[in-house]
Amino acid sequence: MSDLASRVQDKLAPWRDAPGWCVALSGGLDSTVLLHLLAGLRDRPTLRAVHVHHGLQQVADAWPEHCRRLCDSLGVQLLVRHVTVEQGASVEQAARNARYGVFSEVLQAGEILLTGQHRDDQAETLLLRLLRGAGLRGAMAMPEQRLLGAGSLVRPLLDISRDDLARYAQARGLSWVEDPSNADTRFNRNYLRHHVFPALASRWPQASRSLARAAGHLAQAGELLDEVAREDLAQAQVSEAYPWLGLPSLHLPGLARLSAARQRNAMQFWLACFTRLPDTDHWAGWNDLRDARADASPIWKLTDGELHRAGERIYWLSGDWLRAPDGISYWNDPRQALELTGNGRVFLAGNFPADGLRIAYRQGGESMSLPGRGHRDLKRLLNERQVPSFVRSRLPLLFAGERLIAVANLPDLTDGDLQLVWNVPTSEQGLR
Amino acid sequence: MSDLASRVQDKLAPWRDAPGWCVALSGGLDSTVLLHLLAGLRDRPTLRAVHVHHGLQQVADAWPEHCRRLCDSLGVQLLVRHVTVEQGASVEQAARNARYGVFSEVLQAGEILLTGQHRDDQAETLLLRLLRGAGLRGAMAMPEQRLLGAGSLVRPLLDISRDDLARYAQARGLSWVEDPSNADTRFNRNYLRHHVFPALASRWPQASRSLARAAGHLAQAGELLDEVAREDLAQAQVSEAYPWLGLPSLHLPGLARLSAARQRNAMQFWLACFTRLPDTDHWAGWNDLRDARADASPIWKLTDGELHRAGERIYWLSGDWLRAPDGISYWNDPRQALELTGNGRVFLAGNFPADGLRIAYRQGGESMSLPGRGHRDLKRLLNERQVPSFVRSRLPLLFAGERLIAVANLPDLTDGDLQLVWNVPTSEQGLR
Repeated sequence: MSDLASRVQDKLAPWRDAPGWCVALSGGLDSTVLLHLLAGLRDRPTLRAVHVHHGLQQVADAWPEHCRRLCDSLGVQLLVRHVTVEQGASVEQAARNARYGVFSEVLQAGEILLTGQHRDDQAETLLLRLLRGAGLRGAMAMPEQRLLGAGSLVRPLLDISRDDLARYAQARGLSWVEDPSNADTRFNRNYLRHHVFPALASRWPQASRSLARAAGHLAQAGELLDEVAREDLAQAQVSEAYPWLGLPSLHLPGLARLSAARQRNAMQFWLACFTRLPDTDHWAGWNDLRDARADASPIWKLTDGELHRAGERIYWLSGDWLRAPDGISYWNDPRQALELTGNGRVFLAGNFPADGLRIAYRQGGESMSLPGRGHRDLKRLLNERQVPSFVRSRLPLLFAGERLIAVANLPDLTDGDLQLVWNVPTSEQGLR
Repeated sequence: MSDLASRVQDKLAPWRDAPGWCVALSGGLDSTVLLHLLAGLRDRPTLRAVHVHHGLQQVADAWPEHCRRLCDSLGVQLLVRHVTVEQGASVEQAARNARYGVFSEVLQAGEILLTGQHRDDQAETLLLRLLRGAGLRGAMAMPEQRLLGAGSLVRPLLDISRDDLARYAQARGLSWVEDPSNADTRFNRNYLRHHVFPALASRWPQASRSLARAAGHLAQAGELLDEVAREDLAQAQVSEAYPWLGLPSLHLPGLARLSAARQRNAMQFWLACFTRLPDTDHWAGWNDLRDARADASPIWKLTDGELHRAGERIYWLSGDWLRAPDGISYWNDPRQALELTGNGRVFLAGNFPADGLRIAYRQGGESMSLPGRGHRDLKRLLNERQVPSFVRSRLPLLFAGERLIAVANLPDLTDGDLQLVWNVPTSEQGLR
């Protein structure tokens, strides 16, 4: 077994008992060598390959056939998928998204997708990210493994140089396709490869190896910071008064006792699930949120939503939560749930009038009479219950004629024996 | 006031009340502009400049005079210091060390040394460090401030580009010296500046700015990891049975319950005070140390010393601690302390014989008679007391004739009313 094959075999030892391996096969040098290496391993699961046809350049139309011949010669099953790539700002990024979409879709439970990225790719990736001024998380290396769809993605060649792959291919007389777009230096990565790395390598022959190693170190540091963030966030997971809000939220006192740097680390980790992260310059928003007086309701606007402070807690709001709900909804059949445009839905339980009902929102000046407690001002009732201000403006109020007879989800605010149950709008969370 | 001057003034606000400012003046563009900017600020402490003459190139002999004229024109006091630079592997590094040695020496209590490093320097530094495959701590940015000698070092131009400095100098008709070695691309930094950054900048005009920003982000991440390390190490600071050893040591159980990544982070932080850090490949030594059986005494050899495990603790040994002590020392005047070659010194307290005494080390098979406990095996006595094995071989034993009458620093191991007090050898610690 060649040195390369035994290195790859060692690397893949943890996945030897997976239900299957699937090579992401472009037909280029890297994935061709990877497929050839894997096909030659004993003690491995069934191997198959998937080729994604992007339809971006005419020359690529011949690649599925090339992949077919390669797979036939190795006795490997091939799946070819065609995708349509949106020609937007970054064709590279769009093609990548389309490709990974296919991989994620075709992977079976526990199956391992193997891709051909190598050490030079890793070094280029690090430099590209640093050239965007990335922080540690942004600069982190391509991981050797991560979850993908129903299976996992593994990159067994990340320690291996492009030159080693080329030597392997030549020694075995492999043929592969050359993607002409790889020579197109309008693409950032190709520009680095053709104009920057040669200058680096002529001075530091180990430049790619060193940069790839640095990328690995940064990845380790990033994982450690994630671990610290998870631990710190656990201190801010305190059950809240209104769990029916269903919003991501944090209890501030648990965070505020950490150092400023650690607060930011925890918040970056938490926010990364919901939104693009703010620049360094915009972190003052966090300080304002954290240090606000108890009766203030500061807001920190971010790219994909807003953080609202209420009492000792901050809430992540996005989607419908950021749009004011429509004015009045007449409830023609109160035995049925009522959809509220942009504000979830309500339904009634208990004894309620059959008609003359409507849902409206607070305008100010409302009051309601509560059994045994007389006539009370709504504002004061909500203040007493510390209902967050971002909820008040969209909290469904049930009126019978001009009379306010129930407030959603606050069962003690009802004039009689009925309950107004509100399913809050959904926040588009966890989509990123 | 120019935009540049007001940015520098803002940057220096925290040091406006320092007892003095001192510019590190090479006479080149960067420090010339810095001195000119600072001289023009109102509301600042007394300003002086220091020029270090390295004597490495003939042309530089004219620079002190140039600096003198510049300082005279600005009414700033100038100190010129000559140093000798060892012509070794890295002249750059040696010159830098010599320079900072002078700065550290001339700074008065609380005085601020101001240096002219700018944004492009920061970007180059990041790339140079990554090209060495550095981890996060290695890749960290030049800090904007740090302690130096009796004062502090501050770099107020780190956000400012070289081009901005050049524009400032030209607009004001400043003259400066050009160091011909800056064009010498045998130096790594100059190679980057002349052959790599132009290629980056022609594609990414903001390359230096982005890399400098990334460096700042990495520095923040590194500081956070340091904070976590300090906190984690605090869990491993448990008082030990033999504080007179005076060795840096850690109590393992406090570390072993952390994740592997966090252990390594803590150990890297701790070890960085004593030694160059081991490569990724060599961290297996840590696992061996941590996971050893209680009765094993594993050793992890590092560049500048060794970690020894003893019981639940690890000790950092260096210097004399790693050399076996000389065999036998005759104690001619036991009223005086006795220097032990490479093993500190001993002295006696209590009632002791006036002559016939000597210090020797364990050979095996020794025994001693203890008042009221009869004749005991030395090995067993040391085992009972869990004396670390690296101590046993150098633990001074006091003999009167052939009779072992006292063991150093173990007051209950003495045959009579005397005490053998041992000042252990010093470990060269904290020198880095």
